[in-house]
Amino acid sequence: MRESELIAEICKHNAELAACGGAEVLVPPGDDMALVKLAGRRVLVAADQVIAGRHFALGTAMDLVARKALARNISDIAAMAGVPACAVATVALPASMPDHEVRALSDGLRAAALMFQCPVVGGDIGTHAAADGALVVSVSVLAEPGPTGRVVTRSGARVGDLLCVTGTLGDGWHPNGSGRHLSFTPRVAEALALVEALGDRLHAMIDISDGLARDAGHLAIASDVAVRIDAVQLPCADGAGWQAAVSTGEDYELAFACSGEPPASVAGTPVTVVGRFQESGGARVAVRVGTEEHDVSALGWEHGQ
Amino acid sequence: MRESELIAEICKHNAELAACGGAEVLVPPGDDMALVKLAGRRVLVAADQVIAGRHFALGTAMDLVARKALARNISDIAAMAGVPACAVATVALPASMPDHEVRALSDGLRAAALMFQCPVVGGDIGTHAAADGALVVSVSVLAEPGPTGRVVTRSGARVGDLLCVTGTLGDGWHPNGSGRHLSFTPRVAEALALVEALGDRLHAMIDISDGLARDAGHLAIASDVAVRIDAVQLPCADGAGWQAAVSTGEDYELAFACSGEPPASVAGTPVTVVGRFQESGGARVAVRVGTEEHDVSALGWEHGQ
Repeated sequence: MRESELIAEICKHNAELAACGGAEVLVPPGDDMALVKLAGRRVLVAADQVIAGRHFALGTAMDLVARKALARNISDIAAMAGVPACAVATVALPASMPDHEVRALSDGLRAAALMFQCPVVGGDIGTHAAADGALVVSVSVLAEPGPTGRVVTRSGARVGDLLCVTGTLGDGWHPNGSGRHLSFTPRVAEALALVEALGDRLHAMIDISDGLARDAGHLAIASDVAVRIDAVQLPCADGAGWQAAVSTGEDYELAFACSGEPPASVAGTPVTVVGRFQESGGARVAVRVGTEEHDVSALGWEHGQ
Repeated sequence: MRESELIAEICKHNAELAACGGAEVLVPPGDDMALVKLAGRRVLVAADQVIAGRHFALGTAMDLVARKALARNISDIAAMAGVPACAVATVALPASMPDHEVRALSDGLRAAALMFQCPVVGGDIGTHAAADGALVVSVSVLAEPGPTGRVVTRSGARVGDLLCVTGTLGDGWHPNGSGRHLSFTPRVAEALALVEALGDRLHAMIDISDGLARDAGHLAIASDVAVRIDAVQLPCADGAGWQAAVSTGEDYELAFACSGEPPASVAGTPVTVVGRFQESGGARVAVRVGTEEHDVSALGWEHGQ
C-alpha cells in the first residue's frame, strides 16, 4: 500500500474526528498540518519522521540527520504560513550506536531548534532490540498562525490562478543521498511575506517535498482544479532539466496558487510563475514542453515506496 | 548511555530554551509533559514511542500495538492532570508488512483515539529500507489543563507527605510480553478526581511506567526529598510480591504525593497509601520489609537498556 493510499483511507474517516471528543479540528488530516482549537485558540500541529536508509543515507553525520528531522517539519509550518512554537521528538536508536553519535544527534537537535526558533521541549529515547536497527527520528511540531491570523491550506486554488514557486527546483535529493535535503532552510519567512504581500490573493500553498508534479497535484486534488506547468518557466537548479525539476523530491520550496502576479521575490528568495490552474473538476497535472504536453500526474516521489 | 543519563544531559541545557525563541516554556523537559504557552494559553505536549521487540513482543496484534502507542501518551497526560486534546503519529513500517496489518494498525489508532477521546489529526507513514525493519510507532499528544486549571508536576513533594498509588502494582509487563501494558486504561479521570478531591494538598504526581521504585525516585529527585515505601502496604496484583510491585514496569498507575489522607478511591479506582516522604536533601528510595530496609533506588525498569 502506498503512503498516499493509506492517507486517503485515513482521511475517509475524518467525520469520526468530530465524534471523538477532544479538541475541535478545524483543518483535518490531509493538509501539511492539522489546525485545532485549544482553549479557544487555533494551534497548528504536525508530525514527520526520518528513517535511516530511506530519508538519509547510512553514514550521514548525525547533526545533519537531526537538522533534517526538524527542518522538514518546519517546512510544513511554512506551507501553512505558520510561526514555529515548539517541537517534541522521539528517537529509536540502533542498539550498536556509540554514545558519541547519540550525543551528536541530541546536540544537533538542539542546534537546529535554535536555528529554527523552535525549542524541543520533550520526547523519548529508545533503543532497537537489534544492533543494526534503523535509526528513526520522529518530530512533531506546534505552530501558531502568523501576525495576520491567516492559515493557508492546499484547497483554495481557483481556475485562472497562477502556480508559483520559491527558489530553484531539482537538486533536493541526489540518488547518492546528497543534496539540499540535508541543508535547506525552511521557507517560513517567505511564507509570511507572501501572506503579507498577496493577502486574499494567496489562495493555496504547499511545500515541495514529493516533487513539484506530485505536490502541484496535491493542490489540484484538494482544490479540484487541473494545473498546467510550463517547462521553460521552471527555475531549474544547476544541472537539472525540467524532468528533474518536477520530479525530484525534497526541494522544500513553496508552491502556491495566487490570482494576479506574485512579487518577484519574498524575504530575499526569488518567486517564479511556473504554470496556471486551468479548469475545474480535474486533478490533472500536465507539463507543456514546446508544443507537446506531458501528463505528469503519476510522476514524483514517494518515500514510503 | 542509558536513557535517563541522556535526558539528564538534555535537561542541563534547559536554560537555552528561553533563548531559542518560539513558545514560552513553563514546564521544561524532565517532567511527564512539557507545559508551553501558545497564543497566551497553556498547552501540555509530550511524545512517546513503541518499538517492536522492545515495547511489545513480535507477533502482538496490531490493534494492541496501536492502542498501547496512544495509551502510554495518554498516561503522561493523566500524570500532569491534563485533559487529552489531540494526537499526531508517525509509523515506520517493516518493508515486508502486509497491507492488512498496516490497515489493522491504522484502524487500531482510530479506535484508541475514540476510546481515549483524543483524535489523531495528522502524521506520517514511512517504510524501512529493510524487510525486517522494526515497527516504530511514535505518538505525540496535546492536552489542556483540567477544569481547575491546575497542572501537577513531579517536583512538589514535601517532607511528611504520603506516597500514594492508584490501582494495583506488579503485573504491567511479563517477561513473555503479555500483561496489562497492552490493555490498561490511562488514569485520566482518576487524576482529575484527585485534583478535585485534594486541591492544594496534592503536591506531585507521576505515572508508573518504569516501576514504582524508579518513578517514586523521579518524584524524590525532582522534589529533593527521600521516600520510604512500606512493603506490607503495597497493593500487589495477583501473584506479585513486593519486589515485583516496586520494580515491574508499565503498570501505568498514578503515584502521587499529598499531605494528609487521600480519598479511599477516585473514579472507581482504589487509592492506597504506600509510603512517606521522610527527609529533605536526598533522593533515596527505600522499601521497609518487616524490620529490614532495602535501598531500591537502583531497581526498576528502563526500556532503553
